[in-house]
Amino acid sequence: MTQNQRFVLASRPDGMPTRDNFELKTEEVGTPKEGEVLIETLYLSVDPYMRGRMNDSKSYAKPYEIGGTFGGGAVGRVTESRHASYKEGDTVQGGWGWQTHPVVNGDQVVKVDPDLAPIQTSIGVLGMPGLTAYFGLLDIGQPKEGETVVVSGAGGAVGMVVGQIAKIKGARVIGISGSEEKNRYLSEELGFDAVINYKTDSLPEALEKACPDGVDVYFDNVGGEISDAVFQLLNSNARVPICGQISQYNVKNPEPGPRFLPLLLTRTALVKGFLVNQYQDRYSEAIPEMAGWLKDGKLKYKENVIEGFDKAPEAFFGLFSGENLGKQLVKV
Amino acid sequence: MTQNQRFVLASRPDGMPTRDNFELKTEEVGTPKEGEVLIETLYLSVDPYMRGRMNDSKSYAKPYEIGGTFGGGAVGRVTESRHASYKEGDTVQGGWGWQTHPVVNGDQVVKVDPDLAPIQTSIGVLGMPGLTAYFGLLDIGQPKEGETVVVSGAGGAVGMVVGQIAKIKGARVIGISGSEEKNRYLSEELGFDAVINYKTDSLPEALEKACPDGVDVYFDNVGGEISDAVFQLLNSNARVPICGQISQYNVKNPEPGPRFLPLLLTRTALVKGFLVNQYQDRYSEAIPEMAGWLKDGKLKYKENVIEGFDKAPEAFFGLFSGENLGKQLVKV
Repeated sequence: MTQNQRFVLASRPDGMPTRDNFELKTEEVGTPKEGEVLIETLYLSVDPYMRGRMNDSKSYAKPYEIGGTFGGGAVGRVTESRHASYKEGDTVQGGWGWQTHPVVNGDQVVKVDPDLAPIQTSIGVLGMPGLTAYFGLLDIGQPKEGETVVVSGAGGAVGMVVGQIAKIKGARVIGISGSEEKNRYLSEELGFDAVINYKTDSLPEALEKACPDGVDVYFDNVGGEISDAVFQLLNSNARVPICGQISQYNVKNPEPGPRFLPLLLTRTALVKGFLVNQYQDRYSEAIPEMAGWLKDGKLKYKENVIEGFDKAPEAFFGLFSGENLGKQLVKV
Repeated sequence: MTQNQRFVLASRPDGMPTRDNFELKTEEVGTPKEGEVLIETLYLSVDPYMRGRMNDSKSYAKPYEIGGTFGGGAVGRVTESRHASYKEGDTVQGGWGWQTHPVVNGDQVVKVDPDLAPIQTSIGVLGMPGLTAYFGLLDIGQPKEGETVVVSGAGGAVGMVVGQIAKIKGARVIGISGSEEKNRYLSEELGFDAVINYKTDSLPEALEKACPDGVDVYFDNVGGEISDAVFQLLNSNARVPICGQISQYNVKNPEPGPRFLPLLLTRTALVKGFLVNQYQDRYSEAIPEMAGWLKDGKLKYKENVIEGFDKAPEAFFGLFSGENLGKQLVKV
C-alpha cells in the first residue's frame, strides 16, 4: 500500500546544513476532502532560498517550523480530485514541499500544460527560477542594447536565464561561476560573451578585462567578495538587482566588507533586493513570453536531476559546493 | 578701484582640507562681452559636496582643477549687463563659485525674484539643498502617511528640509545630528518626532527606542557607522536615498563595514545614490510648491551666515565638525 513520505525540519543548521537537520517521515496517505486533491509528486524543486527559511530569523519569508514539512515547489499528477478544476491525471504545480503523496487544497495549485514544455519546466525555466530572472533583470536591471550585464551564480537555474534574457535584449553578458564545466556551457551553448571562474581566476583583474566599459547591470545571486569586486566597476546609473547571497547563507560570523554607500553615491547607482512573488500579478505576461523564447530556441535550459525522493537533502547540499549546473531537481 | 577676489584650488587635500589647499587671488575686474554680465556677489554657498570635487577621482562631478576657481553656487546683483535678459540691479543666482566680481555668461545664471523669499534662499531652501531634499525624499524615499523616516545629517541644509517635507507627507520623523543645539531646534522648531545625538547617545539602542516600528525611509547624508546602525532597522520594502556620505569624505583609509546585501535581500529594500541635477527638468514644479510651504509656515529654514569673503574656507571646514546648524552661507 502506498504511503506518504515527507521530509520535515528536524533542527536548524548552524552554518552548513547537514543530514541531521532533516527527518524522513512515513505515514498513511490522506483522503481528500471537498476542495482538495491527492497528488503523486513527480519532481521536487531544490533551491538556494530554502537555506534562509531553515533559520529562525527576521526575513522575507516565514521560517520553516521545526517538525513541519520542508517547503518548496513541486510538480505532480492528480490521483484523486474533489476540486471542480481538476480531474485525475491532471498535472499540477504548487508549493506542497518535499512529500510524495500530499493532500492539498486545490486552490493552492496551478494546472500545468504538458504540451507547452516538459512538465518540470513549471518549477524551472517557466517557474520560480525563470520568473525570478525575468522580473529581477527586466524590472530592476532594465538592460539596454549594448550595455554590459554581469551575472553571478551564472551557472544556476536563475543565472542562466538572466544571461540569456540579457542577450535577447542586446546586452553584452559576462557570467561568473565556480566551475569550468559551467563556464564552457555558458559560453558554448548559451552565448555568454565572457565567463569568469571565481575559483581560479584573479577576480578584479579578470573582471576589468571582461568589462572594459564598466558594468551597467549586476544581477547578484552570490554576494561576498565576488560582489565586492563587481561593485568597483559599476558605471554611472548602474542597476543591481539582489536576487541571492548564496556565499553568505552558511557563514556563521560574516566578515565585514568594503563600504558601498560612497560608491553608490558617486555612481548614482541603484541596488534593490527583490522577491519573485512581488511580481505575482505579472506572471501571466512573463510565462507566455518565455515559452515563446523557448520554442524559438532563444532560451535554453539545463537541469541537474537526482533520482530518488530520499536523496533530496543531498541534492540541496550540492547547491552550496558550486558544482551543480542549471536547475536542481529531484525526480521522485 | 574695485577688484575681483577669488579663491582657487592650490592643492588637493589629503584627508581633512586645510587653508593651504586654497589660494586667494586678486585681479582686475573683467569687462563683459556681448551675452555676458558683470556680477557683484552677495552670498556664497558652502556645501559638503565640494569636498568630493577637491579630489582627483572618478566621481559624478568633474574634479576642480588646480589653479581654477573654487566652484559652487552663489547669488549676486548684476552691475553691468550685455545680455538681453538682465539689467543692472537684477538679482541672479549661478555657479560662478567663490569670487566677488565675476564676469559670467548670462545664459548660465537664473534670475531670482527678491519678492518670493530672501534672495539667499535661492541657494538654500529654494535652491540646490532644498531641491536635493525634495527629489531625494519624494522620488526615491516616497514616504507614506504613518511611515517612519530617519534622516542623518538632520541639522544640515538638506536634512532639515527632508524632515519637514516628510512631516508634511504625514510621516513620523527621526533626526540624527551631532549636537544638542541642532537637536533642540529640530524638535522644538521643526517638529521632528524624535532626535538622536550620535556623539552622546548609544546609537543602536537610541534608534531602536526612537523607531519601534522599524524604518521605512532612511535619507542618508552621512554614511559610516550611523548608517550601519540604521540599516539594521530597515523594514520590508524600505527605501534609502543616498544623498551624502560626509563621514567618509576625509577618511584616508576607509574601514570595512558590515555587508549590507544580505539585509537588502531579506528586507527587499532599495538603496539609490542620486544627484539633484538628475531632476533638472522638474525644478519648475518643485520650487513653487516649496515656496508655497514657506509662505504657509510649513517649511522653515535656518542659515548659518559667516561674514567676509576671505572666511569662505573656514566656513567650509566648519561643515565637517558637525557644529553648523542649517545652510552654511558666506555673506560677501
